[in-house]
Amino acid sequence: MQALVLDPNLDLSIRDVDVDETLGPHDVRISLTTVGVCGSDVHYYTHGRIGPFVVEQPMILGHEAAGRVVEVGSAVTHLHVGDRVCMEPGIPDPNSRATRLGIYNLDPAVRFWATPPVHGVLRPTVVHPAAFTFRLPDNVSDAEGAMVEPLAVGMQAANKARIKPGDLAVVIGAGPIGMVTALAALAGGCSRVVITDVQQPKLDLAATLGPIVPVNVREESAALVIAQMTSGWGADIVFECSGNAQAAAGLFELLCPGGCGVFVGIPMQPVPYDVSQAQIKEARIENVFRYAHVYPRTLDLMSSGMIDVKPLITDTFSFAESVKAFDYAVNMPSTSVKVQIAME
Amino acid sequence: MQALVLDPNLDLSIRDVDVDETLGPHDVRISLTTVGVCGSDVHYYTHGRIGPFVVEQPMILGHEAAGRVVEVGSAVTHLHVGDRVCMEPGIPDPNSRATRLGIYNLDPAVRFWATPPVHGVLRPTVVHPAAFTFRLPDNVSDAEGAMVEPLAVGMQAANKARIKPGDLAVVIGAGPIGMVTALAALAGGCSRVVITDVQQPKLDLAATLGPIVPVNVREESAALVIAQMTSGWGADIVFECSGNAQAAAGLFELLCPGGCGVFVGIPMQPVPYDVSQAQIKEARIENVFRYAHVYPRTLDLMSSGMIDVKPLITDTFSFAESVKAFDYAVNMPSTSVKVQIAME
Amino acid sequence: MQALVLDPNLDLSIRDVDVDETLGPHDVRISLTTVGVCGSDVHYYTHGRIGPFVVEQPMILGHEAAGRVVEVGSAVTHLHVGDRVCMEPGIPDPNSRATRLGIYNLDPAVRFWATPPVHGVLRPTVVHPAAFTFRLPDNVSDAEGAMVEPLAVGMQAANKARIKPGDLAVVIGAGPIGMVTALAALAGGCSRVVITDVQQPKLDLAATLGPIVPVNVREESAALVIAQMTSGWGADIVFECSGNAQAAAGLFELLCPGGCGVFVGIPMQPVPYDVSQAQIKEARIENVFRYAHVYPRTLDLMSSGMIDVKPLITDTFSFAESVKAFDYAVNMPSTSVKVQIAME
Amino acid sequence: MQALVLDPNLDLSIRDVDVDETLGPHDVRISLTTVGVCGSDVHYYTHGRIGPFVVEQPMILGHEAAGRVVEVGSAVTHLHVGDRVCMEPGIPDPNSRATRLGIYNLDPAVRFWATPPVHGVLRPTVVHPAAFTFRLPDNVSDAEGAMVEPLAVGMQAANKARIKPGDLAVVIGAGPIGMVTALAALAGGCSRVVITDVQQPKLDLAATLGPIVPVNVREESAALVIAQMTSGWGADIVFECSGNAQAAAGLFELLCPGGCGVFVGIPMQPVPYDVSQAQIKEARIENVFRYAHVYPRTLDLMSSGMIDVKPLITDTFSFAESVKAFDYAVNMPSTSVKVQIAME
Repeated sequence: MQALVLDPNLDLSIRDVDVDETLGPHDVRISLTTVGVCGSDVHYYTHGRIGPFVVEQPMILGHEAAGRVVEVGSAVTHLHVGDRVCMEPGIPDPNSRATRLGIYNLDPAVRFWATPPVHGVLRPTVVHPAAFTFRLPDNVSDAEGAMVEPLAVGMQAANKARIKPGDLAVVIGAGPIGMVTALAALAGGCSRVVITDVQQPKLDLAATLGPIVPVNVREESAALVIAQMTSGWGADIVFECSGNAQAAAGLFELLCPGGCGVFVGIPMQPVPYDVSQAQIKEARIENVFRYAHVYPRTLDLMSSGMIDVKPLITDTFSFAESVKAFDYAVNMPSTSVKVQIAME
Repeated sequence: MQALVLDPNLDLSIRDVDVDETLGPHDVRISLTTVGVCGSDVHYYTHGRIGPFVVEQPMILGHEAAGRVVEVGSAVTHLHVGDRVCMEPGIPDPNSRATRLGIYNLDPAVRFWATPPVHGVLRPTVVHPAAFTFRLPDNVSDAEGAMVEPLAVGMQAANKARIKPGDLAVVIGAGPIGMVTALAALAGGCSRVVITDVQQPKLDLAATLGPIVPVNVREESAALVIAQMTSGWGADIVFECSGNAQAAAGLFELLCPGGCGVFVGIPMQPVPYDVSQAQIKEARIENVFRYAHVYPRTLDLMSSGMIDVKPLITDTFSFAESVKAFDYAVNMPSTSVKVQIAME
Repeated sequence: MQALVLDPNLDLSIRDVDVDETLGPHDVRISLTTVGVCGSDVHYYTHGRIGPFVVEQPMILGHEAAGRVVEVGSAVTHLHVGDRVCMEPGIPDPNSRATRLGIYNLDPAVRFWATPPVHGVLRPTVVHPAAFTFRLPDNVSDAEGAMVEPLAVGMQAANKARIKPGDLAVVIGAGPIGMVTALAALAGGCSRVVITDVQQPKLDLAATLGPIVPVNVREESAALVIAQMTSGWGADIVFECSGNAQAAAGLFELLCPGGCGVFVGIPMQPVPYDVSQAQIKEARIENVFRYAHVYPRTLDLMSSGMIDVKPLITDTFSFAESVKAFDYAVNMPSTSVKVQIAME
Repeated sequence: MQALVLDPNLDLSIRDVDVDETLGPHDVRISLTTVGVCGSDVHYYTHGRIGPFVVEQPMILGHEAAGRVVEVGSAVTHLHVGDRVCMEPGIPDPNSRATRLGIYNLDPAVRFWATPPVHGVLRPTVVHPAAFTFRLPDNVSDAEGAMVEPLAVGMQAANKARIKPGDLAVVIGAGPIGMVTALAALAGGCSRVVITDVQQPKLDLAATLGPIVPVNVREESAALVIAQMTSGWGADIVFECSGNAQAAAGLFELLCPGGCGVFVGIPMQPVPYDVSQAQIKEARIENVFRYAHVYPRTLDLMSSGMIDVKPLITDTFSFAESVKAFDYAVNMPSTSVKVQIAME
């Protein structure tokens, strides 16, 4: 099939590639309609690896996907040909201890699209387990469906935070994950979100998404803003979405006594964690790894209007323009959030 | 002072009454501006008692209140003359075990406005502890401020439910408490609320408040609606707000495995609790008693626009018309939700 | 094979019966060594049914079992021939929504030993999924291993209660499930357990098992005992293990503000649930259905010495005496707790 | 009064000092009977400061205390002259936001014994709020009563960990706090504790206290031991009690997926926190600051026999020998755990 293939020498091209497409009884075959470009896709393109995962053989990119069911396995009952769907890109071992406990995202054997050596889905069709394929509500478009994957990370973070209705949250970092985390935090019960970044255009966009207070940390102190908003008490929750170790270390200063910090971003360097500062507030720290069981909830919130991701889809390319889309994403203007590729 | 007094013979009148109004160092004096009429006020008017609480001496009615600070005690720092405020009507013993544990609403020694023998606030001024007095944000009106008290009950229910983002909730009963519980559930993370009642006008109003699905249980089965919406799985949370024992007993049928039922309404009769049915779903049941620590959170959600109570304020009377307001509330049309009295 | 078979006419006999014993790749074949007699086994013997489950064809009894692995399926890695093991008697559908969420005990499709039409294990051998078969530590005997099943119910109850270290618990009912729940509560963090019953010999036995305070409710008021022990505050947790609706309704009187009640027993009649009484304490109520994920934890607590079930094994019969064992269990003296059948 | 006074020049002596001893209506006067020597006392003696707290004026040392009530304030009802008691050394502002929320340990205004400029209790008598004074059960000695304070830290840690019955815990560091945390973890539901240290005598003592597995990390790898004990899964909980930043950073390697790490010790340096490693297990991290609401629970567990601290009281000096006791504590042999001073 014709797919967007990244070769080990970092050549990126639409070319023919052989993929096993056997349909099992619990699988569905999906014709892809929209695939988003994620920072990890771009990172494989520019660096050829993420941590221990190295592109050692040709790999199709793309894992934020929506599509249309074109064939269903014999044991599948809840999906039908023609259904518009989105898919979880990670498939765990159904018999692992983690999966049995309900935390399948922590199964070390998870196979995840566009993580070497597993192919992604910038290609015409894919065979996928029906259990990880979700029907899109009529009022959720395919483009929005392809946003469920990044949004699910924000949802997992909101879940882990155990938000109490009316909490004040801070989101450190206004990149795509910061944006979706802010939306999930508001839909999940926060009264207001303070979002921090150094790129003003991103902050300006964030401020249009709901009761979100933008703070450009080049110009003002987030700690001071929070102190003023809370009479010195602090924020109930801080979501670290910048992936910057120094920014992450500043988390405790923003928290209220008994507050919760959530590490969503992935700093490359260890965060200098000041235990004494964390203790004086008896902070609870949660660490997020992808998501589990949140796709249906995410779709419900999108369908009911509680979350609107459309403003985040800033750029759309055709499949034929895929390489151009990636080159654009490498040097994305600060006014852009999410680049998507329309497959049809 | 001139106040709306209920006498033990159930005469209700605006008349002169002596009230102790000594201002302590931690108190503020408040000029009342808006007072809502609660079902419990009406019940004292029509029956002279609620359970063990009997009107044995003249009692001023009213406990859903907003006002303006006109004097502050010497030790008060966070409030100032002129501040617009709303107040928690219950004052616990600061030294009780429950209060020290942070569950002050469960302190048996709580003194609660308009609960015999404690006077309510349908009167010109009241002296109140500053710790239970909360400044209204600029964009929250006094009328909305007087709605914080009933809304706080819904907030406490939403809190207890430990909503996960995207949960589907059912609210049994579309009275004022059912309405505010639905609003709190949506603000607190639910994707959608199914509300049930037999009065179509209330359901029609509820349906305008957000992603709320009205179900007239005279005409269709709530269990069937939920089963259809969830492919037979059930609702994540059921808030019982009808105060009807039989309706309450039907709660388990609506729940999903591992779901949570919350008793908000107060049935006069014991609910026939089918343990076996509850066990097969390992239901968690929470029971709500007023509220604790939720006023600031409620105000934050109102101020940020996540909760709008204005559509619920259906009728407003002047203080001079108070008796008329109560007579109206006794036979309230099903299109009415909340009756308020403007004090000035 | 020769098994203890209950016929639809309630004849109980050791006789030959055909059972499918095909070994799949993920299964093990187990030679039974000890099988306990549960109240449900006895109830099928005396009544032929439990709720919707009716003995309509010959059924082998017994589901509290330990044994020895005699054959392992090709895909099994963690068990070996000769391993001493105990087994979960319920096997869920691995693909159900409940199973995927980690709450497999709530899967309606669970197949459970000795629940019509599924055969139990009072027979020489059984084929069972390795995933629900657990190796016994060296210092846990087969007889103790066969106690894991009832103890697991108590463990699930202790788990649901979310015990805080030092909690005071009440166990209503000193039958086998009350006893194991008391042991699980103590191992799970309680400082002390008050156990109530009307049979003095059971209370006397319970009092030897740890810091357990027996209360014969024929002679003294449990509420009074708790009030004295807690200066009127109440117990943190009440485990209802009597299965008596009236006793269960008395649960709230024993609870402290913010306390937790757990329904472990299964009353045949609805419990008259006094919502107002539950609300005034904001009680949390949990409902227990069997267990999930607790077998390994239970074995760990037995192996480390934190739980000792040996005193509860009061009577042992040989397999040849099985019918006699059941007749004994039907009219069990109040000094007996658990009857077991040694299979070899 | 004659007290053990540390002067700003680090002279330590029993000498006369003036202390305000006014008895308020909610206070009791206590004659001290036993005072333990804590690491913080020793640190003030050797360094004159801990972080921002500097000994700038003469300060009485000691905060782990038991005594006998010799006078009660007019409003005190639950204590009587002659009662044997232990006391919480920290007194929060009763009107602070943290206190009202029930997290009084996080109130920045807490006044804590032997933390400059607040005097400690190595002196004949002290006046203390009755609300923070707890009657010792008859079977708990004064020496054990003086152990409640350090044990309370372990209890707070066990509380925060939200132990599930049967959990496996690791305690990093076998100093006094590690020891009491191990005891609290076992009493709080753990089946077994692995304790790590480099001092063999401490490990040998720990191994006598219950199902505690000692691991000398000079000789074997804790990660390897845990992997072997859990078939590679990991420990459910890791309590960091060493106060060593590098040891603390190794916490994640020991944890199971979904496990919990608790920072109890206070490393002087920031811990290099590997977010990626924490995320892959979705670790929850709790941070402990002293304790709140745990004294009564701790006494209950001691009284019921679930916790025995007597083996930890390795050395006792008379009050006259106080300076000698401190000099001993400065260079304590590794066979010692807790040094106490008998005041009478």
